[in-house]
Amino acid sequence: MQENKIHEKYMKLALELAKKGEGAVNPNPLVGALVVKNNQIIGKGYHKYFGGPHAEVYALNEAGDNAKGADIYVTLEPCSHYGKTPPCVKKIIEHNIKRCFIAIKDPNPLVSGRGIKLLQKSGIEVKIGILENEGKEINRVFFKYIKEKLPYIHIKIATTLDGKIATKTGDSKWITNEKSRKYVHYLRNKYMGILVGINTVKKDNPNLNVRNDSLKNHRDPFRIILDPSLKIDKKLNIIKNNNDEKTILITQIKNKKEKQDFIEELSNKYKIKFIFLNEEKFKFKDIFKEIYNFGIDSILVEGGGFVLSNLFKEKELIDEGSIFIAPKILGDKDALSFITGFEISKIKNSIQLENVSFKNFDNDICLEFKRGE
Amino acid sequence: MQENKIHEKYMKLALELAKKGEGAVNPNPLVGALVVKNNQIIGKGYHKYFGGPHAEVYALNEAGDNAKGADIYVTLEPCSHYGKTPPCVKKIIEHNIKRCFIAIKDPNPLVSGRGIKLLQKSGIEVKIGILENEGKEINRVFFKYIKEKLPYIHIKIATTLDGKIATKTGDSKWITNEKSRKYVHYLRNKYMGILVGINTVKKDNPNLNVRNDSLKNHRDPFRIILDPSLKIDKKLNIIKNNNDEKTILITQIKNKKEKQDFIEELSNKYKIKFIFLNEEKFKFKDIFKEIYNFGIDSILVEGGGFVLSNLFKEKELIDEGSIFIAPKILGDKDALSFITGFEISKIKNSIQLENVSFKNFDNDICLEFKRGE
Repeated sequence: MQENKIHEKYMKLALELAKKGEGAVNPNPLVGALVVKNNQIIGKGYHKYFGGPHAEVYALNEAGDNAKGADIYVTLEPCSHYGKTPPCVKKIIEHNIKRCFIAIKDPNPLVSGRGIKLLQKSGIEVKIGILENEGKEINRVFFKYIKEKLPYIHIKIATTLDGKIATKTGDSKWITNEKSRKYVHYLRNKYMGILVGINTVKKDNPNLNVRNDSLKNHRDPFRIILDPSLKIDKKLNIIKNNNDEKTILITQIKNKKEKQDFIEELSNKYKIKFIFLNEEKFKFKDIFKEIYNFGIDSILVEGGGFVLSNLFKEKELIDEGSIFIAPKILGDKDALSFITGFEISKIKNSIQLENVSFKNFDNDICLEFKRGE
Repeated sequence: MQENKIHEKYMKLALELAKKGEGAVNPNPLVGALVVKNNQIIGKGYHKYFGGPHAEVYALNEAGDNAKGADIYVTLEPCSHYGKTPPCVKKIIEHNIKRCFIAIKDPNPLVSGRGIKLLQKSGIEVKIGILENEGKEINRVFFKYIKEKLPYIHIKIATTLDGKIATKTGDSKWITNEKSRKYVHYLRNKYMGILVGINTVKKDNPNLNVRNDSLKNHRDPFRIILDPSLKIDKKLNIIKNNNDEKTILITQIKNKKEKQDFIEELSNKYKIKFIFLNEEKFKFKDIFKEIYNFGIDSILVEGGGFVLSNLFKEKELIDEGSIFIAPKILGDKDALSFITGFEISKIKNSIQLENVSFKNFDNDICLEFKRGE
């Protein structure tokens, strides 16, 4: 095998390890590491949970003294600062690693390249860019969060073939099949927050938690409700079951005065967090900035029509989407569309989705798209 | 190989031959035939064009005297009557065939089983039902036409993700991509007629012909226009380019009196054929009966919204559908939906499509469905 192919082979394994941390490490990055000596894997690790040891630590501990003279493959540049854990660079040097292969540099301009320099200074040969694209792809959330200081936005839509997400009476159970809905719980687990509109919450009284038995160690997401006029009801599940204090309400600032008592009750008794919108004509960009300030790196936006219609007006904020299409038709102009409020006269000016791919869930199709660079 | 596996192998080849006649034999069935002796194929044939020799004729002629003692595989029961050609049963007997393997009986109750009986009477061993389902599947059009005395209906829809087939100004060029549109020409070639509404015709002034260079020997379909109020314009392509006399207008019977001169001009000068609707509240079933009477065995219904919305009210008439979904969104409530006019309060009462499968055309997805038995 060619040498670069060998490096790619090990980096691929490290990337697969990294993905095992999906949903558990946010807002930290997914990282995987492999220690290899004489073509043998002698240590492996991944970042398992937020605040826990880094991938390199697991891999180097497993290798032990045997790490001397070995190579290490890491999917992201090793850290060089004391944070929640001591710097990995130090640990790599202490283990007398010979060569360090890195998929991609740290996106944070303040530290990017620093770990690499320290490794090189101590005589370790460093090679960067092994499967760089893949290294970036698995950490799309982290790269957006660090570089744009905004949460990664993934929208989810469950629609009929004619673009409806509920009947005129509000019935939406169920448009998509069980397999599709199970996959949504996988997405809920992957991201730190779920955002829905107040109408959806009042209609369905959802728990907005993760229900998918095949997901181990899942964490329930932040429940973020867009409720400009503060129509929330304290009997709703997301209010009364807020033991983890992860419910965030987004409402207009004028409610702070007009509905002061209610806001104080929600805040003090129910531990609800608030984001206040300055104007009636709010911008999602401002909302997402506030959500970023909560330390939330990613949101699954689940609708309904009001949220999606407004969000598509700031389409550049949408990083990814999963549109589940069921083989059903309502044919009713009064049924709820997943999007309205645009005026488009020419097909060529329609909203075009990029980087499209498809998944099947039995008779449901899921169209996935991703924002380009 | 087990004996029945051998028969299935040859029948599969015969079915593949049969499909080569697609689009050229309507309203006759697709038929393929193989003559096999000592495990060698010594003759093969298929029904190539309407009115032409039957599959068995080609296969037996190729085998010649060598057919003596051989087996013949035919995808449909051989004919026993003098029609446009002499009966195939006679030819099979004359060639001293030993065994005859048939996928499925003729659907016409007046002749079904007659060919088989004649073969058996002359000492030929007959086995029916080799790949029977596949034999029926390739002739879905023919079976419907013969058994239900109605044309086979295939609907085609090209929609945005939000169920729109044109902007509010009527622009629909192009929702789907080139590959999808090319496939539509394949469908147009497969069926004997195309049905569209008058609004679509006036808006796009289409030719409604087959444009797909990869299709050899294609025939242009009948152009059937649903025009209840007779709003047609004689400058439109389908009127002035009616040299093949394949344009059929469906209009209300009262126009016969009220617009007598225009109808006579269309009829005499432009050779337009007419179907008259008795009532304003027309039934597609009645229309299709009339189309059947023209000897048209199959129609591709291409829209627009008025036609589709009404046709879905008689959903039992729809045999098959291809819904092309482009990764585009209009988000405009005034844009044209592919279906309206239903009032459905519960998702469980929505129009559900059966036997769903998917095809990809780059970033367009094509959802296909078929009526169950």
